[in-house]
Amino acid sequence: MITDIMKTYNEKVNAFLYGILDMTDKDYPVIFEAVNYSVKNGGKRIRPFLVLKFSELAGAAPFSKEALYFASALECIHTYSLIHDDLPCMDDDDLRRGKPTNHKVFGEANATLAGDALNTYAFEVIADSSAAPELKVKAVKTLSLCAGMYGMVGGQVMDLIGEERKLDKREYEKMNELKTGALIRCAAKLGLIAAGCEDEETYESADIYASCIGRAFQIRDDILDVTADEAVFGKPVGSDAENGKTTVLSFMSLEKAQKLAEELTEKAKDAIRKYGEKSKDLLDLADFLLNRNI
Amino acid sequence: MITDIMKTYNEKVNAFLYGILDMTDKDYPVIFEAVNYSVKNGGKRIRPFLVLKFSELAGAAPFSKEALYFASALECIHTYSLIHDDLPCMDDDDLRRGKPTNHKVFGEANATLAGDALNTYAFEVIADSSAAPELKVKAVKTLSLCAGMYGMVGGQVMDLIGEERKLDKREYEKMNELKTGALIRCAAKLGLIAAGCEDEETYESADIYASCIGRAFQIRDDILDVTADEAVFGKPVGSDAENGKTTVLSFMSLEKAQKLAEELTEKAKDAIRKYGEKSKDLLDLADFLLNRNI
Repeated sequence: MITDIMKTYNEKVNAFLYGILDMTDKDYPVIFEAVNYSVKNGGKRIRPFLVLKFSELAGAAPFSKEALYFASALECIHTYSLIHDDLPCMDDDDLRRGKPTNHKVFGEANATLAGDALNTYAFEVIADSSAAPELKVKAVKTLSLCAGMYGMVGGQVMDLIGEERKLDKREYEKMNELKTGALIRCAAKLGLIAAGCEDEETYESADIYASCIGRAFQIRDDILDVTADEAVFGKPVGSDAENGKTTVLSFMSLEKAQKLAEELTEKAKDAIRKYGEKSKDLLDLADFLLNRNI
Repeated sequence: MITDIMKTYNEKVNAFLYGILDMTDKDYPVIFEAVNYSVKNGGKRIRPFLVLKFSELAGAAPFSKEALYFASALECIHTYSLIHDDLPCMDDDDLRRGKPTNHKVFGEANATLAGDALNTYAFEVIADSSAAPELKVKAVKTLSLCAGMYGMVGGQVMDLIGEERKLDKREYEKMNELKTGALIRCAAKLGLIAAGCEDEETYESADIYASCIGRAFQIRDDILDVTADEAVFGKPVGSDAENGKTTVLSFMSLEKAQKLAEELTEKAKDAIRKYGEKSKDLLDLADFLLNRNI
């Protein structure tokens, strides 16, 4: 079962990630507590799973140190983005995965700084990794590009614009591509870099897979926002509509959206089927994400 | 005159920095405008000056590409810290260098994201630089360590703690060391890394210099906060006392504080005098910072 495999990977990633974040300072422990609070607040660790699985696809041993470092760096970026996204000046969310958001526990100032610290620390993790210097530099470049103004942050900005006026379909798709897609594509690429992959075709196939499951993931998220059980989903249901946000459902029916997610999932799987046994868990992941209820 | 030399370096750094930040996206220009607004809001560019001068001290040609990249990366980090530091949930400042702060112009959400983007982009700049991969990795590690939880962010957290209760002298000095000192020491080190310096003694001498001028700089800042002409200083005078902040003047008189700054300046100069002609501008900088009124 893919869920069992994901659980194993989740545990390995958590052990590694919590290990490198096991630090404090007696004079200001609060920032370390704030960082660990959000990093340890569950999550499916899908991005780290992609890093590890794509490193294996490119020939690395399972749970290679390089892949674990890169996966942890990416998760630091993802976590920082969630902390800042929840801030009162952004989405102003009180709950994240069923628990109080970072600023609700530690205050806005500490939450802002915890996000800042994780953003910065991600690059330290790459620098600290066991990869060759050339690969570390490639990883730093990839992560910063995907997380920055032409990636995730750009998507957040378009998301804010979408709160002021309706985004058209092209803008909406671009927003998603940047906000959610960039880090998912980054995960696949970081996995290949960790394995020292130099085959351009593999990078292209991985990118198609990641791009398609990223889009399908976001569509499923939008669908779940209106159909999910709040207790299972872990965040308030209907919040997108309440905030007047543009979602895939602004442009098509629930049925059409689900069908589009299915088509994207097939396209994703087609892109990596050729890697045979090494692609198996990634094929199952695509199906799992399509059918998830949380 | 050191001010003329600093002006020349300032112009070179600005030309390079503005060049690498000359980017936009037609769908969300606001984040690029917000980033450029704060980066272009003057500043003495003391950290970039230190990067460039220490690269020269270690044998690099003036204005080497490597040093300009590293100096720009550091200035991105410094600028992000100012944007976030001015936010309502932090210092809540309306003015920075005599102009409206980032969030006053672009709103809190965009200001938060502009800071995030600059934090991330700093590491992209290092990855993009012309330095050897090993040196880029060393620069990434140095910058992330100095900017993160054990550096600048840690200092910001201690600064927040100091708003809730009085810091004692040891805590106050540690707060300064992290909040202001870390990036100044980082500047000196990045300069040496850019030049490929491998001499441990030079790193140690540079660190003593940077640490001492950093402390003197902060003391002078605290003195200016109560004595400066607001129009010249570019930020509200007396704001530290108004916000109940601990400053050097919580522990000693103005006269003693000025004397301490003078002693630190001498110690800084003593550490690098041995580099002869190559240390001249750095010696003058130390004196300039001691006597500045802005």
